[in-house]
Amino acid sequence: MRLRDTSEGELLARIFPIYAGSGHVDEASVPVGPGDDAAVVGAPGGTVVATTDSMVRGLDWRDDWSSAHDVGVKLAAQNLADIAAMGAEPTALLVSLAADPDLQVSWAEDLARGIASLASRAGAPVVGGDLSGAPAGVVVVSVTALGDLRGRAPVRRCGARPGDVIAVCGSLGLSGGGLALLHRGEGTLSDAVWDEPGCSDGGGRGSDAGSSRSAAVRELVTYHRAPVPPWQAGPRAGACGARALIDVSDGLVTDLTRIARASEVGIDLDGTVLRERFAAGSLTVALGEREAWHQVLTGGEEHSLVGAFAGEASLPPDTDRPWVVIGRVLPLGSGGPHLTVDGEVPGDAKGWDHFAR
Amino acid sequence: MRLRDTSEGELLARIFPIYAGSGHVDEASVPVGPGDDAAVVGAPGGTVVATTDSMVRGLDWRDDWSSAHDVGVKLAAQNLADIAAMGAEPTALLVSLAADPDLQVSWAEDLARGIASLASRAGAPVVGGDLSGAPAGVVVVSVTALGDLRGRAPVRRCGARPGDVIAVCGSLGLSGGGLALLHRGEGTLSDAVWDEPGCSDGGGRGSDAGSSRSAAVRELVTYHRAPVPPWQAGPRAGACGARALIDVSDGLVTDLTRIARASEVGIDLDGTVLRERFAAGSLTVALGEREAWHQVLTGGEEHSLVGAFAGEASLPPDTDRPWVVIGRVLPLGSGGPHLTVDGEVPGDAKGWDHFAR
Repeated sequence: MRLRDTSEGELLARIFPIYAGSGHVDEASVPVGPGDDAAVVGAPGGTVVATTDSMVRGLDWRDDWSSAHDVGVKLAAQNLADIAAMGAEPTALLVSLAADPDLQVSWAEDLARGIASLASRAGAPVVGGDLSGAPAGVVVVSVTALGDLRGRAPVRRCGARPGDVIAVCGSLGLSGGGLALLHRGEGTLSDAVWDEPGCSDGGGRGSDAGSSRSAAVRELVTYHRAPVPPWQAGPRAGACGARALIDVSDGLVTDLTRIARASEVGIDLDGTVLRERFAAGSLTVALGEREAWHQVLTGGEEHSLVGAFAGEASLPPDTDRPWVVIGRVLPLGSGGPHLTVDGEVPGDAKGWDHFAR
Repeated sequence: MRLRDTSEGELLARIFPIYAGSGHVDEASVPVGPGDDAAVVGAPGGTVVATTDSMVRGLDWRDDWSSAHDVGVKLAAQNLADIAAMGAEPTALLVSLAADPDLQVSWAEDLARGIASLASRAGAPVVGGDLSGAPAGVVVVSVTALGDLRGRAPVRRCGARPGDVIAVCGSLGLSGGGLALLHRGEGTLSDAVWDEPGCSDGGGRGSDAGSSRSAAVRELVTYHRAPVPPWQAGPRAGACGARALIDVSDGLVTDLTRIARASEVGIDLDGTVLRERFAAGSLTVALGEREAWHQVLTGGEEHSLVGAFAGEASLPPDTDRPWVVIGRVLPLGSGGPHLTVDGEVPGDAKGWDHFAR
């Protein structure tokens, strides 16, 4: 069944229960949920953190690379990461879908299930949204995420100071590596790599097959399709006094340069740690050493958190997804550079731009 | 210059000042504006009201009917109306643009100016957003609006009670009437109607030419392109104890039926008042009596506010855009009907559906 075969009301009647089933919502957290002119969401800290991100079929995903569920997970994840990068806890999501009426209703339902799965894990229910038609072939999905700081100050990009350590929570380069593989035709939804043993967990991560190249390909592509960044680490970092935070959306070098510019400091990264802790393993197995290193520095859409802390003792004691020190903050020399790796300006580190392709 | 000729950073550098110029923003209202991972907006009432709406080129507007500025005004207006319909004051907007890289940069700037003009009037600055590429020809704009209830309870759709009066603030049928004219080829951007005398105010509303058909056409089409609904009336209605509120987005009959269903009541509208106060005048001059009446009952995208009040004495004393009593709330007979006009079920009152066209 396609969207044009149903009415807006019938479609909402299918999608509301998917979101409603994504977790317990109490009256204080969400006084008014979907179905009225607007939602009302608790803002106990007296402010609300808000961000929005969109995904466009054919540009931000390809249907032969990503399922609707993947798209939902990814879009929710990147919005949750932006909330986390302010040091805030997510409280609610709003979802807009503009779609060709020829789109399958089941696609819209799977999209909702993907969003709902992360909404449930994050404790941030879907409280509203919008449905629109769109020209033939077009599907655009937008999510707005709201968050609460619990009365703490937001963690800006501008707070890093010389002497701080730079630390990352989560992976680097997996999403960019997965994208590079998909561009080569590896790991697409029809690829036999998904039929191999050890794949039942969806990515082979940590399985016995982890040392094989197929498992590495699956791990990278799975992360690219449906990243699950450590958004829980954001408010914990804020509570521990993080000086600056950002999520890795356009590549480590690009995003840390944003912190360095906003803070008017220099940042020097430790190439040895980055190679040993992030480039080695699946990235190198799947892509080779040179491309793995490139992805660690420049791979976008990872949505891990990276930031500046007053010292190693200030790092949040997160045993599940530990913070790894990858560099330090320096005084900015006249004219820069803002970012170096082992004291050198990285040569091949262009970030992502949405229009200049 | 087209989007593809600029970088995302350069485009943001053009658009940020347009939004920044839309009004004074103090630190308490917006602790963190655009440029970080997420914005932080004041929520003094301890909750945040949130809604989102999108517009799609070719479906929600046509470039030969609406300028980019019109699209910006309209999208901001419909979001502000949703905030108002909860009884809340708007506090901030977020804007997402997904566009063909061939789009003119000047179009994106005019869109921002349109949004900024309403943001300024509403005291709800643009605090964040997102830019994405899109397939050839595609432009999708999404706005999320946030609002604050100042500690009051939200005005739901479900609070109408038998004995209440139904009142509307703002116009009815103008937008739907304007759309009907545009579909007939009248009032398009190239139409000579815009060259006539008395048109310098953009719509001829209230001018000496107001009695002519051209002026009526201009008034309807101008309202359709860039409605300015009375969002200030929403929080005033909430403060006066409005029982239920909704904005007229899908047509008076459809939207009041939503209040009637949610409140489990019947609503009877006064056909004489509706004809004399809303259908007469420009609507009838431009469209004739029969079509004018149809548009009053079914015209969408008007974004006026309509709701239930305990009695005429409860109506907000708004002299600028007064509330007009158009009906009353009745006990619901078994099996309905939920909505009648002079006791009869209106025959020809289908609302708007985004997929079934």
